[in-house]
Amino acid sequence: MTQWFNEALDESIFDLGARTSIKTGRTLFKGESPFQSLEIVETPKFGRMMILDNCVMLTEAHEYAYHEMIAHVPLFAHPKPEQVLIIGGGDGGTSREVLRHPGVKRCVMVEIDGLVVEKSREFFPQLTSALSDARMELHIADGVAYIESQVNTFDVILVDSTDPVGPAEGLFSKAFYEKVKAALKPDGIVVAQAESPYYFQKTQRELYQVLNEVYEYATLYLSAIPFYPSGTWSFAFASKQYLPESQARWEAMAAMTQDLQYFNPEIFRACFALPNFMRRNLVEA
Amino acid sequence: MTQWFNEALDESIFDLGARTSIKTGRTLFKGESPFQSLEIVETPKFGRMMILDNCVMLTEAHEYAYHEMIAHVPLFAHPKPEQVLIIGGGDGGTSREVLRHPGVKRCVMVEIDGLVVEKSREFFPQLTSALSDARMELHIADGVAYIESQVNTFDVILVDSTDPVGPAEGLFSKAFYEKVKAALKPDGIVVAQAESPYYFQKTQRELYQVLNEVYEYATLYLSAIPFYPSGTWSFAFASKQYLPESQARWEAMAAMTQDLQYFNPEIFRACFALPNFMRRNLVEA
Repeated sequence: MTQWFNEALDESIFDLGARTSIKTGRTLFKGESPFQSLEIVETPKFGRMMILDNCVMLTEAHEYAYHEMIAHVPLFAHPKPEQVLIIGGGDGGTSREVLRHPGVKRCVMVEIDGLVVEKSREFFPQLTSALSDARMELHIADGVAYIESQVNTFDVILVDSTDPVGPAEGLFSKAFYEKVKAALKPDGIVVAQAESPYYFQKTQRELYQVLNEVYEYATLYLSAIPFYPSGTWSFAFASKQYLPESQARWEAMAAMTQDLQYFNPEIFRACFALPNFMRRNLVEA
Repeated sequence: MTQWFNEALDESIFDLGARTSIKTGRTLFKGESPFQSLEIVETPKFGRMMILDNCVMLTEAHEYAYHEMIAHVPLFAHPKPEQVLIIGGGDGGTSREVLRHPGVKRCVMVEIDGLVVEKSREFFPQLTSALSDARMELHIADGVAYIESQVNTFDVILVDSTDPVGPAEGLFSKAFYEKVKAALKPDGIVVAQAESPYYFQKTQRELYQVLNEVYEYATLYLSAIPFYPSGTWSFAFASKQYLPESQARWEAMAAMTQDLQYFNPEIFRACFALPNFMRRNLVEA
């Protein structure tokens, strides 16, 4: 039985004026956690799909375009990433990419919603494969509280959150990014999902300006992700020390490319090129 | 009165499994030409929108991401583009970008569907502004027939077509690209819209392979276009002589950037970086 899932953002908050619709088959799970609604459905064209609060989080067919890009850009920009923290990331995909790096000694993931992890293990085994890696340390807890307890610990921190409403609201504030800075080592890098450049211009500008105040260097980069609004998604990159290419590990990048579906050294260079409308938005008063 | 327009491709040809929906207001025009159906509607968020055969062609808000990228990449890759041919392009946007280049002496546009040009002049004046430029030469005619009459004439040819069904079907064949090659000068460049890398992999691979057979050099490049399927769109670039950067006019690019919303020198370099899945698709047997 085929039907259409129509993405439905809360229009009182995000009235985008456009939406994605995806043909769906069987519903595999539908439930509510204390934080959000979770739905997992089959689709005829894109494998299984995860939906949180009526927004598409991922499909099996295209999840790589998000997970490879949030993880490998900072991990290859850092000369020696050993300690990595993921805030959010409950579906497991980001940790899978982080743990492809043999130099990573410890990957901590702090996800607020245990239901997302539990159901991802059940329905998305290819995403959660790294959760059983010996280097993995999983906490079902509030990422903001966790980060307060960490000082000078991490080489790379990845903020793999949902939109800045609901459970992820605190992950877009200056106070949070000051704590992230304290949790990073002096040469640490933070990357955060930063919404669509076409739709969320105010959120994106504010996040960029916060990062520029808190860190020595901040920029954005892009990935092409079909089922996120507009199909183009941004990540914020900030560092106390490194520009993306200043210590980039080009040889290791080239070696890993054969295992990946999206990321490669040319994409690493290219993803930081921003269209004019996006550049202008970032520096608006 | 707000309602949703649901993009509806012919599922017997393109069963994508996903679709874009856009909130619409008033219908400004609805009619049929001998070639296709044409609809022009208002949208609350994206200005006016043009729909051909139930597919979104453009919105006022985002048309630049297509028109700047189809035009400026080849025009800045060519060291001295003076004679430019556009096959299709009836909405006028591509000619507007071509005629930003002061060195262009003549821009010929051959559009098969006069209704698209007529209604674009009426409802999209900011797209058709260049049609009254003294350097413009507009033919309402079949592009395939026109190109047969041209030999060694053009520096750049832009194939600004719809999908490879209906009126644009002939614009994806080897026979057509051999005629395009003959119509180009020895150092000419052709660029053609080349569909979504996520959805139209067979079309894209076949077009790429045709171009590689016919020309000395061929590649693809990308733009982020919100309302085309997947939000990421490809253009094919082929030349008898130039690689994209071999004679690129960097200073002229930088000078024009301030007038544009998408294209800039960094985008020129970056747009040729292709994700792994796309590279692999192009070379599949």
